Amino acid sequence: MSFNTFGRVFRFTTWGESHGPAIGAVVDGCPPGLPLSEGDIQPFLDKRRPGTSRFTTQRQEPDQVRILSGVFEGRTTGTPIALQIDNVDQRSKDYSEVAKAYRPGHADYTYDAKYGFRDYRGGGRSSARETASRVAAGGVARLVIPEVRIRAYLVELGGDPIDRAAFDDSQIDANPFFCPDAAAAERWEKIVDDARKAGSSVGAIVECVAEGVPAGWGAPLYAKLDSELAAACMSINAVKGVEIGDGFAAARLDGEGNADAMRPGNDGPIFLANHAGGVLGGISTGQPVVVRVALKPTSSILTPVETIDRDGQTAEIRTKGRHDPCVGIRAAPVVEAMMALVLADQKLLDRAQTGRGA
Amino acid sequence: MSFNTFGRVFRFTTWGESHGPAIGAVVDGCPPGLPLSEGDIQPFLDKRRPGTSRFTTQRQEPDQVRILSGVFEGRTTGTPIALQIDNVDQRSKDYSEVAKAYRPGHADYTYDAKYGFRDYRGGGRSSARETASRVAAGGVARLVIPEVRIRAYLVELGGDPIDRAAFDDSQIDANPFFCPDAAAAERWEKIVDDARKAGSSVGAIVECVAEGVPAGWGAPLYAKLDSELAAACMSINAVKGVEIGDGFAAARLDGEGNADAMRPGNDGPIFLANHAGGVLGGISTGQPVVVRVALKPTSSILTPVETIDRDGQTAEIRTKGRHDPCVGIRAAPVVEAMMALVLADQKLLDRAQTGRGA
Amino acid sequence: MSFNTFGRVFRFTTWGESHGPAIGAVVDGCPPGLPLSEGDIQPFLDKRRPGTSRFTTQRQEPDQVRILSGVFEGRTTGTPIALQIDNVDQRSKDYSEVAKAYRPGHADYTYDAKYGFRDYRGGGRSSARETASRVAAGGVARLVIPEVRIRAYLVELGGDPIDRAAFDDSQIDANPFFCPDAAAAERWEKIVDDARKAGSSVGAIVECVAEGVPAGWGAPLYAKLDSELAAACMSINAVKGVEIGDGFAAARLDGEGNADAMRPGNDGPIFLANHAGGVLGGISTGQPVVVRVALKPTSSILTPVETIDRDGQTAEIRTKGRHDPCVGIRAAPVVEAMMALVLADQKLLDRAQTGRGA
Amino acid sequence: MSFNTFGRVFRFTTWGESHGPAIGAVVDGCPPGLPLSEGDIQPFLDKRRPGTSRFTTQRQEPDQVRILSGVFEGRTTGTPIALQIDNVDQRSKDYSEVAKAYRPGHADYTYDAKYGFRDYRGGGRSSARETASRVAAGGVARLVIPEVRIRAYLVELGGDPIDRAAFDDSQIDANPFFCPDAAAAERWEKIVDDARKAGSSVGAIVECVAEGVPAGWGAPLYAKLDSELAAACMSINAVKGVEIGDGFAAARLDGEGNADAMRPGNDGPIFLANHAGGVLGGISTGQPVVVRVALKPTSSILTPVETIDRDGQTAEIRTKGRHDPCVGIRAAPVVEAMMALVLADQKLLDRAQTGRGA
Repeated sequence: MSFNTFGRVFRFTTWGESHGPAIGAVVDGCPPGLPLSEGDIQPFLDKRRPGTSRFTTQRQEPDQVRILSGVFEGRTTGTPIALQIDNVDQRSKDYSEVAKAYRPGHADYTYDAKYGFRDYRGGGRSSARETASRVAAGGVARLVIPEVRIRAYLVELGGDPIDRAAFDDSQIDANPFFCPDAAAAERWEKIVDDARKAGSSVGAIVECVAEGVPAGWGAPLYAKLDSELAAACMSINAVKGVEIGDGFAAARLDGEGNADAMRPGNDGPIFLANHAGGVLGGISTGQPVVVRVALKPTSSILTPVETIDRDGQTAEIRTKGRHDPCVGIRAAPVVEAMMALVLADQKLLDRAQTGRGA
Repeated sequence: MSFNTFGRVFRFTTWGESHGPAIGAVVDGCPPGLPLSEGDIQPFLDKRRPGTSRFTTQRQEPDQVRILSGVFEGRTTGTPIALQIDNVDQRSKDYSEVAKAYRPGHADYTYDAKYGFRDYRGGGRSSARETASRVAAGGVARLVIPEVRIRAYLVELGGDPIDRAAFDDSQIDANPFFCPDAAAAERWEKIVDDARKAGSSVGAIVECVAEGVPAGWGAPLYAKLDSELAAACMSINAVKGVEIGDGFAAARLDGEGNADAMRPGNDGPIFLANHAGGVLGGISTGQPVVVRVALKPTSSILTPVETIDRDGQTAEIRTKGRHDPCVGIRAAPVVEAMMALVLADQKLLDRAQTGRGA
Repeated sequence: MSFNTFGRVFRFTTWGESHGPAIGAVVDGCPPGLPLSEGDIQPFLDKRRPGTSRFTTQRQEPDQVRILSGVFEGRTTGTPIALQIDNVDQRSKDYSEVAKAYRPGHADYTYDAKYGFRDYRGGGRSSARETASRVAAGGVARLVIPEVRIRAYLVELGGDPIDRAAFDDSQIDANPFFCPDAAAAERWEKIVDDARKAGSSVGAIVECVAEGVPAGWGAPLYAKLDSELAAACMSINAVKGVEIGDGFAAARLDGEGNADAMRPGNDGPIFLANHAGGVLGGISTGQPVVVRVALKPTSSILTPVETIDRDGQTAEIRTKGRHDPCVGIRAAPVVEAMMALVLADQKLLDRAQTGRGA
Repeated sequence: MSFNTFGRVFRFTTWGESHGPAIGAVVDGCPPGLPLSEGDIQPFLDKRRPGTSRFTTQRQEPDQVRILSGVFEGRTTGTPIALQIDNVDQRSKDYSEVAKAYRPGHADYTYDAKYGFRDYRGGGRSSARETASRVAAGGVARLVIPEVRIRAYLVELGGDPIDRAAFDDSQIDANPFFCPDAAAAERWEKIVDDARKAGSSVGAIVECVAEGVPAGWGAPLYAKLDSELAAACMSINAVKGVEIGDGFAAARLDGEGNADAMRPGNDGPIFLANHAGGVLGGISTGQPVVVRVALKPTSSILTPVETIDRDGQTAEIRTKGRHDPCVGIRAAPVVEAMMALVLADQKLLDRAQTGRGA
């Protein structure tokens, strides 16, 4: 069954295909009275927008968001906020070959297997274009959690990790890779250029940190903060792994190494480390919430790959058209959006049950 | 807000604390007419049961499940199935120190931060004892998906991975570690013994494979099969990371290396690899569904750790009592259960929308 | 908390205000492969459309629906179907007085009490204009249940009931009141004309019958077919009562009078009566599903009514502008839509659990 | 699909059959820190308990509730509260005839049609015995809304209405009918006695009033306060109609008669009437919330009724065993419970979105 709604009390529903007339999101459950205009959302869309450098797809989409409901005299009314983004630069002719054969690594085969047919133009509903709707919804979510600062950035691209010692916050927006390490950003230029020229692609790892989350958001057992983040991130196109705090590395620590010891502080406890990534027992500790997601390389490549066609016959496919050589890059604003959407929901859920933060 | 229910149409709700009189699960939405007795569920509980070897906690719990509703004349009626497990071996005196100070790495501090107080006996609701309820519910879920074979096993313990070349399915149940590599199992004995004797603990990585899942289960966009699995696994105690297929390693592949090429087969396509872990676009491909979860080392250790008490004052805590030196071991049947629960839900959801499999 | 989504597996989300640029619905969970175009939906919107006779509001809205997603090559793809209707004939100047004082019987005061302010133009989100979105979504739902025939009609207007003996199905679409009794329709002309000329309003009772619902849809206990219908109907503007089958009259029967005796039939049992309205134990019996809803008179009247203004001071208000003198009339296609939406959801839910109808 | 969970953030899940070992409810989402013991719940169960007068079934059930989780040191912990009630007085032998043939008016046929078979003992899951679980859950809900006073009482029995002028609150608990009119209670004795002696049954209308609900609870559009109440009440066994405020009578009023005019008051507006039953636009007005439900006569009667058996053959059935001659009587505490459960959920939902009441 199709579930295009995410969230429990702060919820959003997305719709739209890559080559349809428009895409959109309906945000429901937003608190009333928050100042909101298109200008609050557009900057986040601009960060995700394609065609801004040679390292992303050359599809030209202005991604101008319009608010069609839920705002009156500049403030949210508490009713559903409909956000809409027109699709402008569809070139459906690029995708004729895709209609016949399945691109390995894409959802072509599975959509046909499930639904019997599919909108093959630009990946249809399975296109990462849908993530623009999430970013728009995330722009609204941020207004609900002004106490939180969210940053996402790439910590690895094409197997080349950043140097944590060289981490410089101000670099993140200074290069086309959302890369906090200037030297790595330079190396990555070549990696992505090489991949692009070869018609190949590379993967990446995005890290997202939310600071200012108070202790107490999240809850047992199936709406744990980390569980919700895992679902949110794994639902993003091309994501194959999610970890919180030390994540997989935690499995290699011993109990002493993993302990986040505490000391009294002026404003709640001081933690001497944050192996837990800001979440214990599914509830925030007050430390930064840290999530990392692994994105596979773009499945669209020029090298011919063995496949089958819709009739089950042998075929070979090269994926032409316009693609991101590394989908991981533009995923950074998407992960930020999902973090904001999860946290907004959890803040309201916590307020519902405990009355805190009201 | 607390959400102790998981699933969309095949759902279960768990309740109970470590040291309360009992724990349980209510399974709702189960198809009618399935033969079900306690004997169908008990074997899975027995695999997870504590106290079966020196490598797990010595708490003695028979974990006998009782079915209190939803079954008539040996078959499910389609109404809620209440499963109950009595707690037998509570020793609340062991936990007096915990009442006063927060154990780093545990949910003590976050529960207090959220709820204002907590049931500190054995971790209360945050105890991994809750996972017995999931395993019981998973036993019901398996009846819904007889076409699927699920196995979970440890692929790494204390930083020591198995040798994939030595993978032997028959070994999994032949050692106390659910380890498919006999040589690794031998090494792990010493690792866990050392940790136990030192009052320390180690982490582990559990892999779970579901074979027989037909192409077409799962759906865009926020009920993707991999997204649901991520949520399900991340909700398990001590889990800090989840990956599907190649997971984080996929981020280091190029597009060619990541492509799962296809050839025509007699029974649907033959895939030449399974980097995707059986899921593309959130929908199953017909290949084995592969998930891996990282579990941190048990946070209960004998080494004193700096912490604070409930009044915010400096304290030091050693966690005595009975614990698993490696919670990852007994997590294997829990991951299996969550896989079964997700797949049962997805099978019914797919049937709802497409009419397939009816 | 705002919940603008209805349904469990076949779901729809509506958005939009009376005087915003547009209104719409996102239909999620629709089975794939169903032929769908705007032409399948428009006739239902046309039945509900305002301005078609002197007995309804004179607001002129073409209510042309557009499908923005979820359909490819004329068939549903299984992904979200975005439906949009532009607002054309807003006259916001009519509502200036409403901004200041609360119209008794309207949601003005309660929206302010809840949200702190409101979009007062034409009732904003609380306007019955929202029901156009439901009717559009209902047009999709009908495709999911081709075996079912749904008719809604008025059985009482302004306290004047139809004569059941004069019930003539063919009359329903032959008068502006969806009235199955030609003589009553004639009397109602005068009733509504009188109310309209006096600036007053009248209530009505709508009955909706769904034929062809097989036995077995619905389920215990909180998704009973009748419980879902009650929620669906009570959510319609101006509805104050819902009853199934004999409804309130059943409370005056004795056990013998209420029994729907059964005889063997060729195609399932033959029921000798249908006091139950096609639902027993929350599950359909195979008989016609019968629901009746009571709609209060339009709260917009020209007679000045004592009220308070936003500052809590005494005021008096006459509601000018364009209104339906009897909202119950145009409610008939809305009740039909909600019946279709509930039944489509229940059909898919039944298929999920039992595998029937696949 | 079976949905045995009700509520959005304050939720409860019930389980259990009439003749199983026990029934129960799991209450999830309860705020932490509320004093709670069995003694807070038991009085409500005692009001609903069977066998307390000759006017109800003679089944003897002590209906002693036990709290198995979610409470520590006398206060709610914020985790799921498991409530359990043992079944004590099952007499399965009484129901042998029911196994073979369908009792008209009962869920026998529909359960078989849906599930293929059923637990026929005492109605199984479709038995009104399930409502004890709701009453227990409702006892917890009341703690969440201490500002609200809820009373339910019968306003009509066997077609004999109370005299509103004789309404005396203190009478409600002074007779076995929850009847606020002493004279009517006397007449009803004879009505129920006559029905009981004749092996017949009668229907009833229950009214429930919640005072103290502040303005602002509830929300558009599919979680309207009245919509939720309608679903909650229609899910109760034997209920065939639900109305809010004037309900069906509102359909006979004109706009002037229906207007609830307002005047300034010291503590919010003063309404000059309450035709709306405390709800406008789905949101509470601050006036008493008034709901009325119609209950059909008990379907179990001694008069033989024509029916069919499981093989579709002609049969005749008399329903012996122990039954309530008027299920409407014991429904009063059940309607109260559902009102409490809906209001608790709505209070928390309102707090989530608006921050009010925290």
